Amino acid sequence: MNLYTRIKESFDKQVFMQHIGAELESVEEGKVSISIENNGQLSQQAGFMHAGATTTIADSAAGYAALTMMPEDTDVVSVEFKVNLLRPAAGRKFMANAWVIKPGRQLSVVEAEVIDQDSGKVVAKFQGTMFSVSNE
Amino acid sequence: MNLYTRIKESFDKQVFMQHIGAELESVEEGKVSISIENNGQLSQQAGFMHAGATTTIADSAAGYAALTMMPEDTDVVSVEFKVNLLRPAAGRKFMANAWVIKPGRQLSVVEAEVIDQDSGKVVAKFQGTMFSVSNE
Amino acid sequence: MNLYTRIKESFDKQVFMQHIGAELESVEEGKVSISIENNGQLSQQAGFMHAGATTTIADSAAGYAALTMMPEDTDVVSVEFKVNLLRPAAGRKFMANAWVIKPGRQLSVVEAEVIDQDSGKVVAKFQGTMFSVSNE
Amino acid sequence: MNLYTRIKESFDKQVFMQHIGAELESVEEGKVSISIENNGQLSQQAGFMHAGATTTIADSAAGYAALTMMPEDTDVVSVEFKVNLLRPAAGRKFMANAWVIKPGRQLSVVEAEVIDQDSGKVVAKFQGTMFSVSNE
Repeated sequence: MNLYTRIKESFDKQVFMQHIGAELESVEEGKVSISIENNGQLSQQAGFMHAGATTTIADSAAGYAALTMMPEDTDVVSVEFKVNLLRPAAGRKFMANAWVIKPGRQLSVVEAEVIDQDSGKVVAKFQGTMFSVSNE
Repeated sequence: MNLYTRIKESFDKQVFMQHIGAELESVEEGKVSISIENNGQLSQQAGFMHAGATTTIADSAAGYAALTMMPEDTDVVSVEFKVNLLRPAAGRKFMANAWVIKPGRQLSVVEAEVIDQDSGKVVAKFQGTMFSVSNE
Repeated sequence: MNLYTRIKESFDKQVFMQHIGAELESVEEGKVSISIENNGQLSQQAGFMHAGATTTIADSAAGYAALTMMPEDTDVVSVEFKVNLLRPAAGRKFMANAWVIKPGRQLSVVEAEVIDQDSGKVVAKFQGTMFSVSNE
Repeated sequence: MNLYTRIKESFDKQVFMQHIGAELESVEEGKVSISIENNGQLSQQAGFMHAGATTTIADSAAGYAALTMMPEDTDVVSVEFKVNLLRPAAGRKFMANAWVIKPGRQLSVVEAEVIDQDSGKVVAKFQGTMFSVSNE
């Protein structure tokens, strides 16, 4: 199966992605990008995009980046991640770019950054661990 | 101002909390609980609640727990957090309980756990840093 | 083999523990404590114990806490950890207490805190992931 | 004062750095490298360099990278950090390279990687937060 198709099929089953308006932007081996638009529904008390929404697309992109390097009959779960929020997510459109820094049969380590497409600045930096699980 | 009222006013401005159906459950000095119900809108590809939703309520509860110990004319922002996902979030209702372990004039350190109300088990453990910002 | 003996045998092979003067204090199922004394050799630029030394005993205690719940023919490695440094490590003697919050066949999640024995205060909070590896 | 001199003066006060044999390798604005050699004193139970030693040089390099971008009358303390251990630290000499990704008047976010000089491979990835404190 094509790499994009594999990830897209899983992405489309993530109802939460649709609920927050996230879109799968690109898929390469070890690299996945997901975008989101804050139409106001994703804001925290000061009007910026909520850190939870920022983290959600970073985590999804990271998990899928890891999945591109795992066998076809496997799925991926997040073991843990850490996010530094660098600036208020003041823009309207954001892109989470994730890349694998250490693929593994079971454990993969992935980084991601979330970029405010309006300012071009990084609003969040993510570092996490993904685990491969059998689909049976 | 009453502690609950202070937090509730801010919580109600968090549009993202309403968008995902989160509710402010309780507020004490240094402790805040937020619940969420996964009616299907919050699911990831395997049908469990998405780690992003789990993290979102943990982060909000943690931020507000810190805010209860900050001066009245301040707001709170997340500096960073780390989440370990302990089990699939298989239930329908979840409770994020957050507590401050080190209050500070500027930086506060907060922990939170997210409990699956159906199984009574902890599905996520959160440890993060909050920063106090002036409201002017 | 006795739980304490099992951990002590491994601890004694950790040359770095001796180099920094760490001692194995107690071992229970899922709980391990390690102490350290800063005789001046462990200090950072302001005279407090270095965050690296604090982290080292937290990580070792956490790894061994996880190992107490793993099969006898396995060893443990740290996958990742996160540490919040709550206060300057101003005292002379410190105790790292670690406890497993989620044991697992492969992955275990462990917390630890490092206590300044002079003040009784927590100077660091640790949350990490340990992995079981076969000894063969 | 010259940037290297400023960092070197502080580094030389870190007794723990000497105790573990760490050396300040290079200093640029926002970038610092520290090396270490495992002559056997830094090993864990399997003979690899202990994660605590790996973390110690990553944390020191990260703190100093942040300090290069802070005012001259300030010092730096670690707020928190997260480390993923990617591979066994099997080599003899290691280099921690740290770089600031978000400088700030109070809070700085820094990344670091620790490279096994024998294999050329990254053994640890660090992401942390540093805080500027006045020297008075």
